[in-house]
Amino acid sequence: MININKKAESLGKVRSVIRDIFEYGNARRKEIGAENVYDFSLGNPSVPAPEAVDGAIRDLLDNCDSVALHGYTSAVGDETVRSLIADDINRRFDAGVTKDDIYMTCGAAASLTVSLGAVVNDGDEVVAIAPFFPEYRVFAEAAGAKLVVVPADTESFQVDIASFGNALTPKTKAVIINTPNNPTGAVIKRDRLEALCEVLKKKAAQFGTHIYLISDEPYRELVYDDATEVPYVVNMYDDTIVCYSFSKSLSLPGERIGYIVVSNRMEGCRDVYAAVCGSGRALGFVCAPSTMQRVVSRCLGMTSDISVYKTNRDLLYENLTSYGYECVYPDGAFYLFVKSPEADATAFCERAKKYELLLVPSDSFGCPGYVRISYCVSTDMIKRSLPSFKALIEEYK
Amino acid sequence: MININKKAESLGKVRSVIRDIFEYGNARRKEIGAENVYDFSLGNPSVPAPEAVDGAIRDLLDNCDSVALHGYTSAVGDETVRSLIADDINRRFDAGVTKDDIYMTCGAAASLTVSLGAVVNDGDEVVAIAPFFPEYRVFAEAAGAKLVVVPADTESFQVDIASFGNALTPKTKAVIINTPNNPTGAVIKRDRLEALCEVLKKKAAQFGTHIYLISDEPYRELVYDDATEVPYVVNMYDDTIVCYSFSKSLSLPGERIGYIVVSNRMEGCRDVYAAVCGSGRALGFVCAPSTMQRVVSRCLGMTSDISVYKTNRDLLYENLTSYGYECVYPDGAFYLFVKSPEADATAFCERAKKYELLLVPSDSFGCPGYVRISYCVSTDMIKRSLPSFKALIEEYK
Repeated sequence: MININKKAESLGKVRSVIRDIFEYGNARRKEIGAENVYDFSLGNPSVPAPEAVDGAIRDLLDNCDSVALHGYTSAVGDETVRSLIADDINRRFDAGVTKDDIYMTCGAAASLTVSLGAVVNDGDEVVAIAPFFPEYRVFAEAAGAKLVVVPADTESFQVDIASFGNALTPKTKAVIINTPNNPTGAVIKRDRLEALCEVLKKKAAQFGTHIYLISDEPYRELVYDDATEVPYVVNMYDDTIVCYSFSKSLSLPGERIGYIVVSNRMEGCRDVYAAVCGSGRALGFVCAPSTMQRVVSRCLGMTSDISVYKTNRDLLYENLTSYGYECVYPDGAFYLFVKSPEADATAFCERAKKYELLLVPSDSFGCPGYVRISYCVSTDMIKRSLPSFKALIEEYK
Repeated sequence: MININKKAESLGKVRSVIRDIFEYGNARRKEIGAENVYDFSLGNPSVPAPEAVDGAIRDLLDNCDSVALHGYTSAVGDETVRSLIADDINRRFDAGVTKDDIYMTCGAAASLTVSLGAVVNDGDEVVAIAPFFPEYRVFAEAAGAKLVVVPADTESFQVDIASFGNALTPKTKAVIINTPNNPTGAVIKRDRLEALCEVLKKKAAQFGTHIYLISDEPYRELVYDDATEVPYVVNMYDDTIVCYSFSKSLSLPGERIGYIVVSNRMEGCRDVYAAVCGSGRALGFVCAPSTMQRVVSRCLGMTSDISVYKTNRDLLYENLTSYGYECVYPDGAFYLFVKSPEADATAFCERAKKYELLLVPSDSFGCPGYVRISYCVSTDMIKRSLPSFKALIEEYK
């Protein structure tokens, strides 16, 4: 009889719904050919990294001393890299960020676990707004917090400010926002964000606490219309921690590289930054991958060719809504969040399989009754899938 | 008044002794010139990665699809990479390891935090044998355990088996061993390891528990004499978890790449492996860096040019002992563990600074009265430092 950590064991055994669908897809691809399966399940960038990425790697190999390039950086990240990132942030957002506010991480998940580990004490509450990336629950609970969920605003997938206010208590230590959003693609508008920050300020003052706004921003660069603004939260709310990742913008999800900004406008910012360092240390992050730190610092302001995602979004949105699907227009990320034509989204996804359409039911995102369609796929596959989408919705008419 | 995680904050603020010495060295180098400072403080590989490492990176960039190369791997690591590593282990140690027993990690620290998170429950005890890498305490406590320290066997820096047995209780969940050892360079001999495993088996049977033997092996390849054997613990004890890193063997400490082996001989091995996956997930490790996974799988069996370390060890050991320093002959790693000629090793290190010798007092390794000398430095610096070592010990005669 073994007596290991049961929570870890169950986390390792619970197969994610998305993974299950992906593996069903693999089996189906073998049976009927990959070209006949329309797999919209995975949020994995489908366009290559910009050429500058591989160019930067080659240049570093050619011109940088091996011991320096592959050696430890400071635990917080290479100083030059942090300076370049701070400069880029300030150029774009005039946010007064310094290199000393930046902590390099092994990607978005690490940014979140390190940040939560820095501020959360056992029994605290962490607020997420439905629908949300399911790992938020895992990360919040691992840090010792209870996840409190704000119900989805299904009108616009913005944030319902009244519901949001109701979720805040004297135990609220942090709020996670994610804009552009996985799974809806929604971008929270400036006035809504301002209202959210006002509520945070009011409640924190009322409770005599600090509530940290953790802005999870892996999709920041993935917006497709000039008019779409993704406001920089550091400029709106002092107790802000930004969790950034280069996974989606540079198509580098496997390389695990991102950063945290601890806003220098918060009270005790050096203490919070120290806690970020301590949290990263206790979790086993010695430093972010050293070559990749230098690579991303040379590719700031670049993205992969996201025009493909825009083409895909427009093609899917226009056709699906013309067939009768209900969907809020997604401003960013690479997801379409479509209302299931029957209450049980899982049943709908099963029916979709008859047409070789692989969609993800929304239940695990804290907002049942929808499906997530990842459009980080080839445009050609989307075109071929359209008759299936049409036939599927016809079943409900 | 902020109310963040105090433990994380203090972990982030406690400056490590080693870091302090290194920064003193930086200041001193500016004052009197780098060539006049003899800095033996850091355990950072001083020889470049084998050329095959950069060659593998270039080849992957040239011949691998960008989306696949930089994309997510499976959370446990790329399947081909794990197969190649299992094959290499079995070729060398005939250990019956399979790809499904291997979990790729972001280096040695991650291997340890993930393993401890998998098996430890709150209130468990984790045993370390002095002298030990100070982060073991941080990692054990972060997992919810109390660290129990076996006093050093200062005769040989092997393990005193009687003391070891006394440290085991019904609460002991894991034992960490580290051979070749940081900070002593000692390699635990086969008969001593066998005795250690026998005690573990006897005590686990007596308590009706499982005690996991976590073998922290970043220095496995760094041994310098043909006669020195580093036994493979999987073959000696069923409840073994190996924590490996390529940081030292391939001089890649900044790239964060290593792996865990969950021995398939342990009871419930699939459950323990699942707990490793769940632990890694909760800590925020999505996958190990994707390019580096492929790189190390192409460089198995290679090392950096460790002959430099052997030269350094021999030079330092022969000269220091001839001057009158007391030191156990180090079989591996790149450390010399020298007895301080006065009881207070910190005072001795202060006195050494007069001769521009930067040494690390052993207190933080759980074994006061010694200094650690890292010989991953240039041979030339060692030669130039010898008169200083000689003059320093003369003060005590």
